[in-house]
Amino acid sequence: MTKYVYLFKEGQASMKNLLGGKGANLAEMTNLGLPVPQGFTVTTEACIQYYKDGKKIAPEVVEQIFAALEKTEAEFGKKFGDAKNPFLVSVRSGARASMPGMMDTILNLGLTDEAVEGLAKLTDNPRFAYDSYRRFIQMFADVVMEIDKINFEHLLEAMKEAKGVHLDTELDAEDLKNLVGQFKVKYQELKGEPFPQDPKVQLIEAVQAVFRSWDNPRANTYRMLNHIPYEWGTAVNVQGMVFGNMGQDSGTGVAFSRNPANGDRVLYGEYLFNAQGEDVVAGIRTPKPIAELKKENEALYEEFDRIATKLEAHYRDMQDMEFTIEKGKLYMLQTRNGKRTAQAAVKIAIDLVNEGVLTKEEALLKVEPSQLDALLHPTFDPKALKAAKPITQGLAASPGAAYGRVVFTAERAAELVKKDKLPVVLVRQETSPEDIEGMVVSAGILTARGGMTSHAAVVARGMGTCCVAGAGEVKVNEHGKFFTINGKRYNEGDYISIDGSTGYVYGEKIATTEAVVSGDFATLMSWADEIRVLKVRTNADTPRDAHQARVFGAEGIGLCRTEHMFFESSRIKAMREMIVAKNLKEREVALAKLLPMQREDFIKLYKEMEGYAVTVRYLDPPLHEFVPHTDAEIADLAKEMGLPFEELKRTIEDLHETNPMLGHRGVRLSITYPEIAVMQTKAVIEAAIQVTKEGLHVEPEIMIPLIGELKEFKFVKDIVVKTADELIKASGLKIKYLVGTMIEIPRAALLADEIAKEAEFFSFGTNDLTQMTFGFSRDDAGKFLPDYYKTKIFESDPFAHIDQRGVGKLMKMAVSLGSEVRPNIKTGICGEHGGDPQSVEFCHNTGLTYVSCSPFRVPLARLAAAQAQIKNPRK
Amino acid sequence: MTKYVYLFKEGQASMKNLLGGKGANLAEMTNLGLPVPQGFTVTTEACIQYYKDGKKIAPEVVEQIFAALEKTEAEFGKKFGDAKNPFLVSVRSGARASMPGMMDTILNLGLTDEAVEGLAKLTDNPRFAYDSYRRFIQMFADVVMEIDKINFEHLLEAMKEAKGVHLDTELDAEDLKNLVGQFKVKYQELKGEPFPQDPKVQLIEAVQAVFRSWDNPRANTYRMLNHIPYEWGTAVNVQGMVFGNMGQDSGTGVAFSRNPANGDRVLYGEYLFNAQGEDVVAGIRTPKPIAELKKENEALYEEFDRIATKLEAHYRDMQDMEFTIEKGKLYMLQTRNGKRTAQAAVKIAIDLVNEGVLTKEEALLKVEPSQLDALLHPTFDPKALKAAKPITQGLAASPGAAYGRVVFTAERAAELVKKDKLPVVLVRQETSPEDIEGMVVSAGILTARGGMTSHAAVVARGMGTCCVAGAGEVKVNEHGKFFTINGKRYNEGDYISIDGSTGYVYGEKIATTEAVVSGDFATLMSWADEIRVLKVRTNADTPRDAHQARVFGAEGIGLCRTEHMFFESSRIKAMREMIVAKNLKEREVALAKLLPMQREDFIKLYKEMEGYAVTVRYLDPPLHEFVPHTDAEIADLAKEMGLPFEELKRTIEDLHETNPMLGHRGVRLSITYPEIAVMQTKAVIEAAIQVTKEGLHVEPEIMIPLIGELKEFKFVKDIVVKTADELIKASGLKIKYLVGTMIEIPRAALLADEIAKEAEFFSFGTNDLTQMTFGFSRDDAGKFLPDYYKTKIFESDPFAHIDQRGVGKLMKMAVSLGSEVRPNIKTGICGEHGGDPQSVEFCHNTGLTYVSCSPFRVPLARLAAAQAQIKNPRK
Repeated sequence: MTKYVYLFKEGQASMKNLLGGKGANLAEMTNLGLPVPQGFTVTTEACIQYYKDGKKIAPEVVEQIFAALEKTEAEFGKKFGDAKNPFLVSVRSGARASMPGMMDTILNLGLTDEAVEGLAKLTDNPRFAYDSYRRFIQMFADVVMEIDKINFEHLLEAMKEAKGVHLDTELDAEDLKNLVGQFKVKYQELKGEPFPQDPKVQLIEAVQAVFRSWDNPRANTYRMLNHIPYEWGTAVNVQGMVFGNMGQDSGTGVAFSRNPANGDRVLYGEYLFNAQGEDVVAGIRTPKPIAELKKENEALYEEFDRIATKLEAHYRDMQDMEFTIEKGKLYMLQTRNGKRTAQAAVKIAIDLVNEGVLTKEEALLKVEPSQLDALLHPTFDPKALKAAKPITQGLAASPGAAYGRVVFTAERAAELVKKDKLPVVLVRQETSPEDIEGMVVSAGILTARGGMTSHAAVVARGMGTCCVAGAGEVKVNEHGKFFTINGKRYNEGDYISIDGSTGYVYGEKIATTEAVVSGDFATLMSWADEIRVLKVRTNADTPRDAHQARVFGAEGIGLCRTEHMFFESSRIKAMREMIVAKNLKEREVALAKLLPMQREDFIKLYKEMEGYAVTVRYLDPPLHEFVPHTDAEIADLAKEMGLPFEELKRTIEDLHETNPMLGHRGVRLSITYPEIAVMQTKAVIEAAIQVTKEGLHVEPEIMIPLIGELKEFKFVKDIVVKTADELIKASGLKIKYLVGTMIEIPRAALLADEIAKEAEFFSFGTNDLTQMTFGFSRDDAGKFLPDYYKTKIFESDPFAHIDQRGVGKLMKMAVSLGSEVRPNIKTGICGEHGGDPQSVEFCHNTGLTYVSCSPFRVPLARLAAAQAQIKNPRK
Repeated sequence: MTKYVYLFKEGQASMKNLLGGKGANLAEMTNLGLPVPQGFTVTTEACIQYYKDGKKIAPEVVEQIFAALEKTEAEFGKKFGDAKNPFLVSVRSGARASMPGMMDTILNLGLTDEAVEGLAKLTDNPRFAYDSYRRFIQMFADVVMEIDKINFEHLLEAMKEAKGVHLDTELDAEDLKNLVGQFKVKYQELKGEPFPQDPKVQLIEAVQAVFRSWDNPRANTYRMLNHIPYEWGTAVNVQGMVFGNMGQDSGTGVAFSRNPANGDRVLYGEYLFNAQGEDVVAGIRTPKPIAELKKENEALYEEFDRIATKLEAHYRDMQDMEFTIEKGKLYMLQTRNGKRTAQAAVKIAIDLVNEGVLTKEEALLKVEPSQLDALLHPTFDPKALKAAKPITQGLAASPGAAYGRVVFTAERAAELVKKDKLPVVLVRQETSPEDIEGMVVSAGILTARGGMTSHAAVVARGMGTCCVAGAGEVKVNEHGKFFTINGKRYNEGDYISIDGSTGYVYGEKIATTEAVVSGDFATLMSWADEIRVLKVRTNADTPRDAHQARVFGAEGIGLCRTEHMFFESSRIKAMREMIVAKNLKEREVALAKLLPMQREDFIKLYKEMEGYAVTVRYLDPPLHEFVPHTDAEIADLAKEMGLPFEELKRTIEDLHETNPMLGHRGVRLSITYPEIAVMQTKAVIEAAIQVTKEGLHVEPEIMIPLIGELKEFKFVKDIVVKTADELIKASGLKIKYLVGTMIEIPRAALLADEIAKEAEFFSFGTNDLTQMTFGFSRDDAGKFLPDYYKTKIFESDPFAHIDQRGVGKLMKMAVSLGSEVRPNIKTGICGEHGGDPQSVEFCHNTGLTYVSCSPFRVPLARLAAAQAQIKNPRK
């Protein structure tokens, strides 16, 4: 028979999957001989079985619970419901991973009309006993029976009014006993049955309530955001109660073994005498800093400090602990690895190595790569933030915090900032490439529409500017120069603040503090670089991005999107001339104007990336992205270009596509207009010649996008090689360059062995590859993906984390087929996934040469790459 | 050293790939001891080498040509350029497959100023010699040197004018000699060098001209249409000349061993005495039927008949032969399997079996499946067609021929046909689902836009109605009730005719003849059915289609597109109510209206398909396809539905998608609105209960479209099974049904082993699978695919023939992964490819259970399936 229930002394830390984090640690502390009130854990498997059985608890689980209960009672020498010496327990949830959103704690379970008398006598404190009982009834009704607690709070208020008092503590034992009576009547009225007087019934109901809370909306949301599989289930911990509220020689507290804000090596926490856990949280009394305990009761403090040190040494990590003191005796209720700020995480990792506790490898694994973001961006001043209340929430699209005056157009942003240098926040329905110049000068960007991979989000991450995207409650009236949120109006010039790490928007100015990158950070990064084998490049289209990325440790450019170079207003005209050209000759005239601009861009990029590879992707988006679409704008453009309106309008209409994602773009443009590839090759190679003449070393990697067929690649490669070799020969210099392809179309992955005959490198474009493999576009999937999360069909966003089973299978195929033909073929990834720790680990395991990500993700990728190598060494 | 040149006696029929069809057959006839003027073949490999070397003939090829030439000269006892006894040759192209569009023939090569004198003396016929020389100069200049022949024709005309004659034949030897002089002057003037007087130079130039012609635009177009790989190259045949124009004891002719029009077993052809091949073609003299030869020269006729019989027996197929008689001696110049009409193809195949020449299997391989179409559709009366000239050409979208009065709207079509029963042709910019009722009553459909898989094309093929799609020159003015082609106007009510097998459109009424399906056809089909293992189902959404398909031998429905049932004007209202419903309750009200309609449809389909499986695909297209999009139409609908215009407009706008192909459709609709799947399941199962009660047997197969993930499938399957089992249980009957999925998303193919855990069958939706695997949509690919054909990146349309390397690889993976989990899983294909012979063969080889195609393609698929089994036996 499956063992569904473990006494604490039967478990250990390594059984986390079965016992949950809390249960495993209670077991481990028990084994370490620490003072832990004994109890037992109902396993995650029991929870899974509960759901399998259609939300019914299995009889064998109940049986095992009662058996464990009996043993625990014996240990305490008490009995459930006993009129003299009643046994009480706490019931808590505890999943594998710490999971807010689920049911937390029920205390004092086991109290009944009989037991409460026993408790009163035993403690000689009837007030304490009845106070515990009325709290228990309310908590049980609320979290187990889903009766709104407001029903009970009304009764409590009425009682206080009747007695003419203000505080709960001013009620005496008799009042509370009366209240218990009222609570039970209310309970029966609402529930149709009396409050259960059998503690075993209470217990089984509570256990099931924990199971149910695994599937509540808050838990589901949290799981989705944190990629915790639904299948894991939660465990339930049942633990004998000890009381911190038995008088001034009792108390309760929480403490960290180090300072979780900055990492300093000092006990950090709070405690209260004569209190239960909920009192600390409730905020009625102010807890004292743990350092005070030393003065109040040095022996106790020393004991706790010893335990903390022992636990930290045992777990080899900073601990977050809960304790209770019952009549002068210290009990440990929980320990776990403590959450900490990014700054603290880095410092603690470094310190633990210096203290000889951890190896460098172990230390690297202690820092969550995604935390590093916080070290690279400004954050709100915590004090200022405390007073602020968000007015809405969007997607946390690009980290950092900012305040500024609201503007609604890119032009206005540039104008205002130029005028008075004060910050602005650009608020738009959604951004488009023409907004770039306004985005560059803005302190933050807020959009009403668009997802994590919308234009605003992608560009903002690239620039390291904070961005909240897709804040649906924001109704933008660009023409009227205001926006509203739930009817409240915000005008141009009003200050707002946005937090791109949480998605919160505030209707006021909140001070920010600049990012401070410590020496510890540099040390950690240097360790990561020593260990990792996966290279980290950056996606950069401008010298500014490239420079930023080098500062963050990028080893080359993995993706330069050349089209981004053409969106600037000074250049888009020539681009548009190229697009509306009626024949090859006109097109070549326009291309000749673009050539020197593009060449200059590359010269600057090469200089920033000196010594490293620069991967240049040839023109990718459909041409209609470069032209205006409203009649008014078309009329303007027609005038500017000296074309009849009707003619220009027809040309633009001809560019319309039913499914632009699956249309005339990428390499398909070069097949139709080979002269574009010629121009781009000239720019890449002439720039390389220029910087080589200046004595620098450069190695361009020319990348052809959207390849699906060898002959298609060969067609363009031939043009590139012919153009490049002629220029290089004429220059008399030696310049190495590669011609490779993106793998972003399923067919390219399927036929990677053919394509590798000609392609000198592969770079996975996992944004498009994800779209085509799943058959949905990220622009449209927003409509139905929420339903996919709700029904648990998807547990994470495939555009945020590589779908390892599907898309990943194609990637593995491509790497393996490509290597058969071209051993050691250079392989990389340049989609958004290159900056996601999970995906970086997958890329490492798949044997890729490098990942490429936006500049501000480079440190994260370096750390994630090192962690991947530690977990699964390569080479 | 590679052997690039083969004497005829060195070759044989099996060497077709190397020697081309013509060369291999000349060799075979030589080996059979037939009278063939000797010569040699330059191999296809020499042609491939020519292109590899940048269009240069390799020295070793030239060397081998000259060596073979020497041997051939010796055989004839003649010498190139000899002043007494000059050796002359013909030079012809000859690829593996017969290929119009390439250079055909150069005759009399070897004539020079000296040799022409020798020829004159030898034949004692100076007029003949100079006539041959001037023809040769003109032909050489034209086809080898690319000098427009108009230059020489002017000179000929001037000469005739000067001499006051009308016919070439009225010029005498002296005139022709003068003309030769003028031709040579003209040649030098235009070419900058004299006409070559070295026959070897002439020969090598001619061989290269043949190689070049492999790459000319007409040849490229033909290859693309017929899927002949560019890599094959062409061979060149050099053959000693014999002369049919040496007097009345000489002649030339072509003949088939059977009648190629109807298959009758009788020599069928034409001949001319005293003529060369080109005279027969030129049409100046009328050739005589071959039967006349028997009267004119019985011995010669008998000899030819014997040879024809021998060749037919040898090749075991009807032969198409060319012959020349030189001074009473018969020479065979060519033989090949003859082209024939569909009717003849079927009769000849059956007759050859009855004659004991062929086995049934061999006979089945003799009929081209795509030819069968012609037997199932009306065709133009050949005599009426001869006089007609097309006014434009579009895509041959659905076979058959039709005439009718032009109408521009579906309503008008229905109205006119109802009124007078006379045929109409529906002419539209493009059709949409709302045109269905008009399409049903039209004799033919002509659209200005859209490709082979546009709505018009797909629906027309399904109905067996002829359709010409995407005729870009047709400018439709629906409002003005006319269309123009190059400025010429055609009004409503004017007669036009269209040929859906060629794409031609005629501006007049052309009589048609009905399809006649012979007993031979039925015999052939019965043999195909005996042999094939691949089942053939049909795609049918209406009882009419289903009935037609049963007549054509369909074994069930492989695809019933349920959405097509909702486009009818009487039903679309309820559908629209469902779409604009604001909540579940409103949606269920609308669905309740749709349920009885859909149930009735299924009852009728089941009855038509009695005993066979009916596969029902659940709602697939994005919902916006069901709603109007112009303001006027929205206003109408708003009025009809009693909704405010603005509200309806907003609802419709919310349905807009950036990439509808990759949007909210297929199973995604059922995830968002599970009630749709409930309604459809009720309709499927209630209908099954109904017909079962009537004593019929039915086996519904419920097919969930657009699956990419097991959990997604499971979610809907659970709904289906729950709904279905409740209904079945309540009915007390035993009804079997399956729940399966389409494999049309790459991820579904990649994870087919997971999906097969729940899916009871797979049906490949190769239209979408092709789109996603290549990353282009068929709506948009029309813009750039022509460039892909021009650059030879693609050699055929992946929407017409399965891309076996890419899409096919996914299909093979899916079949293999699916079978691992569910051995003998039922697999089929329901995309357009199911009616393409190449693709059917691929499906057979991949181990599919069935193909499903439009009703009129069913016979074709049955034959193609039999051929596939013969070529590669399965099971």
